[in-house]
Amino acid sequence: MKNYDIIVVGAGHAGVEAALAAARHGLKTALFTIYLDNIAMMSCNPSVGGPGKSHLVSELGMLGGEMARHIDNYNLQLKNLNHTKGLASRITRAQADKYWYRVKMREIIEKQENLDLVQGIVVDLIVKNKKVMGVEDNLGIKYGAKAVVLCTGTFLGGEYVMGDVKYSSGRQGETASVDLPDRLVEYGFELDRYQTATPPRIAKSSIDFSKTEELKGEDKPRYFSYETKKEYNLTLPTWLTFTTPETIRVGQEMLKYSPIVTGIVSTKGPRHCPSLDRKIMNFPEKTNHQIFLEQESVESDEIYINGFTTAMPPFAQEAMLKTIRGLENAKIVRYGYAVEYNFVPAYQLKLTLETKVLDGLYTAGTINGTSGYEEAACQGFMAGVNAARKILGKKEIVIDRSEGYIGVLIDDIINKKTPEPYRVLPSRAEYRLTLRQDNIFIRLLEKAKEIGLLNAEKLTELENTCQEIENEVERLKGITVYPTKENNEKLLEIVEKQNQSESAEIEKNSKNSMNSPVSAFEFLARKEINYDNLSEFVETVELSDLAKEQVEINAKYNVFIEREKAQIEKFKKLEKMIIPKDFDYESVKGLSNIAISGLMYGQPETIGQASRISGVTYNDISLLIAILKN
Amino acid sequence: MKNYDIIVVGAGHAGVEAALAAARHGLKTALFTIYLDNIAMMSCNPSVGGPGKSHLVSELGMLGGEMARHIDNYNLQLKNLNHTKGLASRITRAQADKYWYRVKMREIIEKQENLDLVQGIVVDLIVKNKKVMGVEDNLGIKYGAKAVVLCTGTFLGGEYVMGDVKYSSGRQGETASVDLPDRLVEYGFELDRYQTATPPRIAKSSIDFSKTEELKGEDKPRYFSYETKKEYNLTLPTWLTFTTPETIRVGQEMLKYSPIVTGIVSTKGPRHCPSLDRKIMNFPEKTNHQIFLEQESVESDEIYINGFTTAMPPFAQEAMLKTIRGLENAKIVRYGYAVEYNFVPAYQLKLTLETKVLDGLYTAGTINGTSGYEEAACQGFMAGVNAARKILGKKEIVIDRSEGYIGVLIDDIINKKTPEPYRVLPSRAEYRLTLRQDNIFIRLLEKAKEIGLLNAEKLTELENTCQEIENEVERLKGITVYPTKENNEKLLEIVEKQNQSESAEIEKNSKNSMNSPVSAFEFLARKEINYDNLSEFVETVELSDLAKEQVEINAKYNVFIEREKAQIEKFKKLEKMIIPKDFDYESVKGLSNIAISGLMYGQPETIGQASRISGVTYNDISLLIAILKN
Repeated sequence: MKNYDIIVVGAGHAGVEAALAAARHGLKTALFTIYLDNIAMMSCNPSVGGPGKSHLVSELGMLGGEMARHIDNYNLQLKNLNHTKGLASRITRAQADKYWYRVKMREIIEKQENLDLVQGIVVDLIVKNKKVMGVEDNLGIKYGAKAVVLCTGTFLGGEYVMGDVKYSSGRQGETASVDLPDRLVEYGFELDRYQTATPPRIAKSSIDFSKTEELKGEDKPRYFSYETKKEYNLTLPTWLTFTTPETIRVGQEMLKYSPIVTGIVSTKGPRHCPSLDRKIMNFPEKTNHQIFLEQESVESDEIYINGFTTAMPPFAQEAMLKTIRGLENAKIVRYGYAVEYNFVPAYQLKLTLETKVLDGLYTAGTINGTSGYEEAACQGFMAGVNAARKILGKKEIVIDRSEGYIGVLIDDIINKKTPEPYRVLPSRAEYRLTLRQDNIFIRLLEKAKEIGLLNAEKLTELENTCQEIENEVERLKGITVYPTKENNEKLLEIVEKQNQSESAEIEKNSKNSMNSPVSAFEFLARKEINYDNLSEFVETVELSDLAKEQVEINAKYNVFIEREKAQIEKFKKLEKMIIPKDFDYESVKGLSNIAISGLMYGQPETIGQASRISGVTYNDISLLIAILKN
Repeated sequence: MKNYDIIVVGAGHAGVEAALAAARHGLKTALFTIYLDNIAMMSCNPSVGGPGKSHLVSELGMLGGEMARHIDNYNLQLKNLNHTKGLASRITRAQADKYWYRVKMREIIEKQENLDLVQGIVVDLIVKNKKVMGVEDNLGIKYGAKAVVLCTGTFLGGEYVMGDVKYSSGRQGETASVDLPDRLVEYGFELDRYQTATPPRIAKSSIDFSKTEELKGEDKPRYFSYETKKEYNLTLPTWLTFTTPETIRVGQEMLKYSPIVTGIVSTKGPRHCPSLDRKIMNFPEKTNHQIFLEQESVESDEIYINGFTTAMPPFAQEAMLKTIRGLENAKIVRYGYAVEYNFVPAYQLKLTLETKVLDGLYTAGTINGTSGYEEAACQGFMAGVNAARKILGKKEIVIDRSEGYIGVLIDDIINKKTPEPYRVLPSRAEYRLTLRQDNIFIRLLEKAKEIGLLNAEKLTELENTCQEIENEVERLKGITVYPTKENNEKLLEIVEKQNQSESAEIEKNSKNSMNSPVSAFEFLARKEINYDNLSEFVETVELSDLAKEQVEINAKYNVFIEREKAQIEKFKKLEKMIIPKDFDYESVKGLSNIAISGLMYGQPETIGQASRISGVTYNDISLLIAILKN
């Protein structure tokens, strides 16, 4: 029997991060895939980032994951969105080059030391005394391992669905993992089923682009990864068009053929990425849905129709498609379809992503009931890191909800019931003002150091930047700016100049003059002041761009940030308050029955986790804290 | 129902040529594939060309097919082999870039006017009155067509085999075409089964190259296509190593697990590309089999082990692999395996590749019982051309055995029983001295003009070159070289210089002086004379490189070429002598019973075809000729 330290099953976005993280810990790792040519395949939309997801990818990059660098390198365009909106909602979205992303990810894996890539279908685990000892593939070969990470995506018991057709398949035209679900049930796992769907793809040459709006990427984009240095980024277009009243009329006529209407698919799909069928059912009065036409790669003429997800039968897809502006003669090269698959509801996991059922078994990605490449990649990475650290006898690593979206994601899926595939959203984060994209290098610095997979030189550089910021904030706090006539004249001059300038923010700058002395740090909070023109009032220093931005943000949003810091402190205390493993909830007088059943089912490890179980109230938590303090 | 002129089923090497040829005739064409990302996939060895196959590809290029240009563009190295051997055996072999070949072929298809690319599984034909009217896919969608070309490769009833495992699959990890075989039987086709196998692939980083020999490509290679103009060609290495006595010892021990020994596979595989199992069984005394290590792409670290084909179980593959020099620590990324599949024995075809069973249905490639990308591509092209010409009311095109290897291939599969997958071989051609690689532009000029798919400018250029050659041969025949003292002195000088030169051919040049007058053409036949030094004796003209080469070859091999010409003339007469469709063989007195049954079964269209049916003797043919002449 061949022996590995860690075996990763499935080479999608979760699996590649898990395998790379494990191998980079110096552990002998094997990555299994059903089909070697489809590693890191973008099964659905050719894009990475967007609200919440953008944060996930950048956080992953800071911790030493691959996706951030990789999407920076292999994209068709990058957009930095919401820069006129609030600080917390500034994000990045990449139009990926689906083909290059996949080919080059495979190259990285092939070149990674300690990592073997194996084509095969894992059909069983090797289990002894509730501990996983390896896997067995469909050829009957056994492989030993100290830990196994399952990243099976939609392949675990996957079934293809279109119109009234349904058959075993992990993705259109690809073999599913048929045997593993039954084995997992035998080992004591509870399984459930979700579905997801994808729109048809059309030939670029069949689109009338004159009826669409062209959307290009940034010339000088802000990248996901701190490591990325590029002279030039592609700015290839995507195109925006709209559905028409006719789309909705035809769609309503065709709804009777939809698998979600006929009941061929009865499982839940991702609510935040609804199919066109669902949009027509739920919002029949809305007729102008946005449709983005996204090219899949410079190497392909295939266009992804973002906003047109459906698994209706082909004639229905075609009838609806040609009602869309610019797509009157569009030719479908792949029809849209749905996939139904098994997942392992994540309450069966620890926060390290190790399962509670089998020691040494980890699950990550779609198998945990999530949706999205970014969600998958982050889980894969954390599972790989924790599996490796457990083997190496190192302390396992958990990102908490106040440290990053990764923490929100993992805590949510384990502790909250998700009635549909889970997608990260900014609204799921309590501490949005802290979990910004711009300060990831600060808030995850310690975790990145602990994990040790980020490039050491870059880590030192970022650590120095953090120190630079801290020093400068302290220094500015110690300098006073006085309301002299001269200073007020300068202020007026600056305001007038900014109001003339075309690049002035829409909101007019304050014209109030100073009337009391303030620290330079407080002075920097004024709308019209930035670090550059601050030098007209006090002495400034040479700061790196990253540091300058943080100093300004800290000054301008100081009040809000400090307020959130206090909340986080309180949260951290609760979060750290551990509930003993066999705590007897039933013996606690005053706990509601709903709370008791929720707590017994969820088995929270801390008060923080307990507080997020649905049905558990503020009163319940107060009771628990009182008892635990005794 | 969507209507096309021509539908091509399967997008391997046959299917892409068929579809491109059809669309380039201006006909509305659809190309169906089970999996859009695997168009023009090289399922087995990443190479094109070699004996016989090299001729096929160049012929295809001359006729306007895609493979010749494409492999010229997307290779890792090109080799021009046997240049010191006889004229007829000079060939080209390319190490393909499997990734780029596939990706860029798809791009060509996507950009081709009149051609729709559709992902789907064709499960049935639409047939009326013994005429094909279209196809139906697995979603129940019907597509109308005036002609259908089946290029199903190993997917038609395909089954994956390794060790004692066997299951439905077209290639490892890919969905087979399960329903179509039964439908074909219902329509009246006879089906049979073949198998083919592929070696394991290993990780480049696990090879000890110091124990292998590096083999690079030509700096200035001769390309397959007349259209190719490249400043620079890659010359990346492949590596040569050998099996050891230990390989054979281990192999013999493992033979009991071989699917061909256990009987899990009982069908015939390609004899000319034997598995390692077969080599060990048939030649146990030979221990140093050549093993070529071939990189699959610049984009991949996967190495193809040419010479190590096996479908033994994994432990056996590994045990044998590590006995090979340099592969002691090799890591397998995909195991070798076999595929068993249905084919349509080709006696059911006309020479146009249209089936005799259903009007408008063509088959091409592996479905016709052949093996090899080159064989497939040529058939696909001819089927596409003939289907298009039939629809357009043009005369169908047949290449005969004296015109090209394509003719040998198609005539062989239809008229000769092949007990195993058919591969083209130089020995199968009767007129090898005529069917050279260097003169393809001459011998296929008329056919290329008739087909009209070769670039028009290039065609004119080649036509002019043909005229140039003809004129110059005639001119040289009209000039006399006399055995003067001066001429003999020059001859001696040339011979001496050539013998000194390192680049002199191994065979020493004749030192005989002239003793009678000869034409300049005859004079050019002398070993020491080439067209360049001929100018020392008579006036020469400015010739293109292509023309110069042909003038020299014509002169030097004149006797042999003329002799073969006479044989071809005779062959052509026979070939053209048509046998009426309902000819009553049983009424011919003197025909042997074996001949009668063979002729009735094979239904030859001409005396030429009849002569190649096994069991039909010279006497039988003489009898038939006598009767037909009356």
